[in-house]
Amino acid sequence: MSYAAPLKDMLFVVNELANLSAVHALPGCEDATPETVEAVLEENAKFCGEVVAPLNVAGDREPSAWKNGEVTTTRGFREAFHAFGQAGWQGVQHPVEFGGQGLPKLVATPCIEMLNSANLSFALCPLLTDGAIEALLVAGSDEQKKIYLSNLISGKWTGTMNLTEPQAGSDLALVRTRAVPQGDGTFKVSGTKIYITYGEHDMAENIVHLVLARTPDAPEGVKGISLFVVPKFLVNADGSLGERNDVHCVSIEHKLGIKASPTAVLQFGDHGGAIGTLVGEENRGLEYMFIMMNAARFAVGMQGVGVAETAYQKAVGYARDRVQSRDLAGSPGPVAIIHHPDVRRMLMSMRAQTEGARALAYVTAAAYDAAHHSDDAAVRKQNQAFYEFMVPVVKGWSTEMSIDVASTGVQVHGGMGFIEETGAAQYYRDARILTIYEGTTAIQANDLVGRKTVRDGGATAKAILAQVRATEAELESAGGDLAAIRNQLAAGSKALEEVVDYIVANMKSDIKGVFSGSVPYLKMAGIVLCGWQMARAALIAQRKLDSGEGDARFYQAKIATARFFADHLLSQASGYRAAIVGGSVGVLALAEDQF
Amino acid sequence: MSYAAPLKDMLFVVNELANLSAVHALPGCEDATPETVEAVLEENAKFCGEVVAPLNVAGDREPSAWKNGEVTTTRGFREAFHAFGQAGWQGVQHPVEFGGQGLPKLVATPCIEMLNSANLSFALCPLLTDGAIEALLVAGSDEQKKIYLSNLISGKWTGTMNLTEPQAGSDLALVRTRAVPQGDGTFKVSGTKIYITYGEHDMAENIVHLVLARTPDAPEGVKGISLFVVPKFLVNADGSLGERNDVHCVSIEHKLGIKASPTAVLQFGDHGGAIGTLVGEENRGLEYMFIMMNAARFAVGMQGVGVAETAYQKAVGYARDRVQSRDLAGSPGPVAIIHHPDVRRMLMSMRAQTEGARALAYVTAAAYDAAHHSDDAAVRKQNQAFYEFMVPVVKGWSTEMSIDVASTGVQVHGGMGFIEETGAAQYYRDARILTIYEGTTAIQANDLVGRKTVRDGGATAKAILAQVRATEAELESAGGDLAAIRNQLAAGSKALEEVVDYIVANMKSDIKGVFSGSVPYLKMAGIVLCGWQMARAALIAQRKLDSGEGDARFYQAKIATARFFADHLLSQASGYRAAIVGGSVGVLALAEDQF
Repeated sequence: MSYAAPLKDMLFVVNELANLSAVHALPGCEDATPETVEAVLEENAKFCGEVVAPLNVAGDREPSAWKNGEVTTTRGFREAFHAFGQAGWQGVQHPVEFGGQGLPKLVATPCIEMLNSANLSFALCPLLTDGAIEALLVAGSDEQKKIYLSNLISGKWTGTMNLTEPQAGSDLALVRTRAVPQGDGTFKVSGTKIYITYGEHDMAENIVHLVLARTPDAPEGVKGISLFVVPKFLVNADGSLGERNDVHCVSIEHKLGIKASPTAVLQFGDHGGAIGTLVGEENRGLEYMFIMMNAARFAVGMQGVGVAETAYQKAVGYARDRVQSRDLAGSPGPVAIIHHPDVRRMLMSMRAQTEGARALAYVTAAAYDAAHHSDDAAVRKQNQAFYEFMVPVVKGWSTEMSIDVASTGVQVHGGMGFIEETGAAQYYRDARILTIYEGTTAIQANDLVGRKTVRDGGATAKAILAQVRATEAELESAGGDLAAIRNQLAAGSKALEEVVDYIVANMKSDIKGVFSGSVPYLKMAGIVLCGWQMARAALIAQRKLDSGEGDARFYQAKIATARFFADHLLSQASGYRAAIVGGSVGVLALAEDQF
Repeated sequence: MSYAAPLKDMLFVVNELANLSAVHALPGCEDATPETVEAVLEENAKFCGEVVAPLNVAGDREPSAWKNGEVTTTRGFREAFHAFGQAGWQGVQHPVEFGGQGLPKLVATPCIEMLNSANLSFALCPLLTDGAIEALLVAGSDEQKKIYLSNLISGKWTGTMNLTEPQAGSDLALVRTRAVPQGDGTFKVSGTKIYITYGEHDMAENIVHLVLARTPDAPEGVKGISLFVVPKFLVNADGSLGERNDVHCVSIEHKLGIKASPTAVLQFGDHGGAIGTLVGEENRGLEYMFIMMNAARFAVGMQGVGVAETAYQKAVGYARDRVQSRDLAGSPGPVAIIHHPDVRRMLMSMRAQTEGARALAYVTAAAYDAAHHSDDAAVRKQNQAFYEFMVPVVKGWSTEMSIDVASTGVQVHGGMGFIEETGAAQYYRDARILTIYEGTTAIQANDLVGRKTVRDGGATAKAILAQVRATEAELESAGGDLAAIRNQLAAGSKALEEVVDYIVANMKSDIKGVFSGSVPYLKMAGIVLCGWQMARAALIAQRKLDSGEGDARFYQAKIATARFFADHLLSQASGYRAAIVGGSVGVLALAEDQF
């Protein structure tokens, strides 16, 4: 099997770090008992490992292909997606009312991770569909919900997000697609959208495009953008499919990676106008899109964790099999390379980064659940703030680290890693998109600096740092590995707090200087906050060892991994502080023509 | 033009940092006047930019192809290589006696950088040929020199290095290829060699394979390896080509990058035995191979610098053209993205790493020249030690940073970076081999720890650190950017010195612990030593500015780039110290089955 879900670690994080029992106690989350969750994850692991993972290599070698406006996906994808929908996996986190399973985000998150570990390209279709579901749930009319939701949640139809245009990438103010009201409640949409993931394919009966466009009298900029739903096939009153709508795929891109996932150029309205309906109110499209985007950004963060995990598993497998050179401590003959210190260092680096990012993401998912389900308004508010702070960190950091991890995976394979047949290179190519789509790392970092840190004067950041400090206090009396972890965590959190103060204090007087450090700030936050979760994990593991509970070898490995994280990753925090606090001078000094 | 050589920076480094006038004063280097060198570099820049760079994209899209044992290279490669030989570029650093130009390594090095910037795949053929020339010069018999050298130096024939076998990658002790003496001074060679760069192609009349193999009574392990020269076509007494030798290309690899460069599986002796002659003495093959390897390792370091430079140029071009979002400080409409702080940060990061690695490599080349040409034995010895210390750093660090730089180049392009037609992705794919071939980064790091640091008790490392400290002293009274640079350099060199002490002190008692930190040590050395060169560059630039000499804007940019290097890269040194000094615990803790 090319992928075996790390269920033990997932369940440890779900139960111990993200506190499933607290989530289970929330109103509306009663079904998420530890036993149910374990069963769901095991079932999902089986599906991902047996049905989806085997299609990953084929998708890379025989990608989706375009012909005369139609896209044929890789052989096997259609059947696998059908099985995915039938088994109810599209609906894990969606309302029971529309056919979903209504489980908490804390349960959906490991499922999303597993699907992405198995096959990034395949997982994108459900990922975008989740976004469409989310937007319609929040802003759709009752009729729109009725028409679309159950078909999307069952996997019969799929969804897309249509934001980007050739001139409008990160800058949505430049969106030009037009939507003209027809007087009958519908709009005619026309324009070109690019980079539309699964914008056209053969895996479902209908494709539900959510499209950003401007009405004729809309104000300029982002305040004049509305959201429309434009299905590939119009839907009759009885719910059956009607006429083909005027949205056509004119080409798909030739990409570095995720080749099985068709990235479409969509032309709306070249033959009279694509018929769509407005979602929510006019000119509030960006706001709704952000609902989808936040869900999608978190999910892309999970893509990072997912691909990192598979890259790690593949590298471990190779390192166990490949025999080369004697052991440094002496051996009669050459040994498997997993015995060589630098191979171990690489594997531990892959493992520690993956486990740290997983822990932070699941804890963030639990905060989302508390923010949505708690009956205490103060708890909801606090968790919402935590969740919103973490979304850019989970997206930005998990994806940045996934590129590093995939690259290290190639390195573990030596020359074999550079040969495409080995498969390690595919992760390196696939992962490269993750820091770009759904908002580049810089966009995440700007969000983290502006909306998430400065807007409340650093209050949320400081509240989180106080939680980190509480973990440090718990580690106070420990010795050995835990003391080493505490020292690095304390140095990292101190440096991060200084950076938060710097950002809040200087935003007004030196906006360019502050934003020069936005990505280093995001990376630093990712390292310190994942390091915090690893420190919490080590504490819990030590308690389990002390009390003799559970699998001692798992807990020992967790402590060792946390120790590695502390010495090799948390130790980078002070360097980032220098890059942020003094580093803007060098960033901004050159005139354009001096580059 | 897809590549314009950064001649201004190259000449600054050659003249000011690497001290061309001192090299020019060496016996045998009299031809390398500043004027000649400038003319050579300009001519080379023109050739690389006009003839070689335009083939880079074609080589990726229509790679070398294998059919029935023959390899057809990308259209245009053959003609370009012919022109390369004709113009004398293969011979820049080789002896006049055999048709070379006899110029110092300090002059050849920028030429190698330019060729690699233009086209990594193309440049590999001359790179390997240089290695073969080097080995024959050092260890070849007079007859071997007579037969092979002038044809290799003129580019009429090309050379290869045949080390790797399926079971013997980094571990050459496992080489199994056999060489049986025929009693007439020749040997029959048989075995399988893999990953042979330009092992078969159509660009030259003959291919001169240098092959590691064992004679029948050779001892086991690396002490039983001899070096043989095995030409594709046997050479008649009059120098004309004779019979086809029994070495055949059975396949070429399907690779992630450098696709135009054929990576061959070579079968020796399947039809009676390939005829070869021994190079130098029996069982000293590894020693001779290391001569080629050291030259090739340095050259692969230049591949890193070269691809980083082109990736930087491409990213700058895109950042100037792409208009997206308003300026943070306010602008009427969207601006070119080069105005956005994080785009500048990315470009400065690419630029600073490239300039730093270039500076260290050229200074290292100048040390090689002094080590080979000085009439003072003490000077030769000191420079040889400096050169040998730096080879793994130049190879390891320049290639590691080139992957980061190429990846950042993709990021600057946003979504466009992931589309193959843009071209940024090719650098990301191509660069990925550089940390693997000619010795992985771990192999370089083990060399740096074992042979280069511990063997002399840290003396060479300390001597170099004393030079760093002298630069810090020169910066002592400076203010502004130079003071900031000094602070980061002092912190970095202090951390590096502590690491050197740790390594020397613990090697015997904790060999695995020390080697757990070998790659972090190499990276840290790369950062501190490149940062040192950038600090030297800033000092010189400041003096030029103070005296009103030369191009003020160039010197201002150099200081700004050095400042960026200090805050964003040198600042990482303390993190690496933690990873090395305490970090081995986490690296080594897990049992094999706990991964």
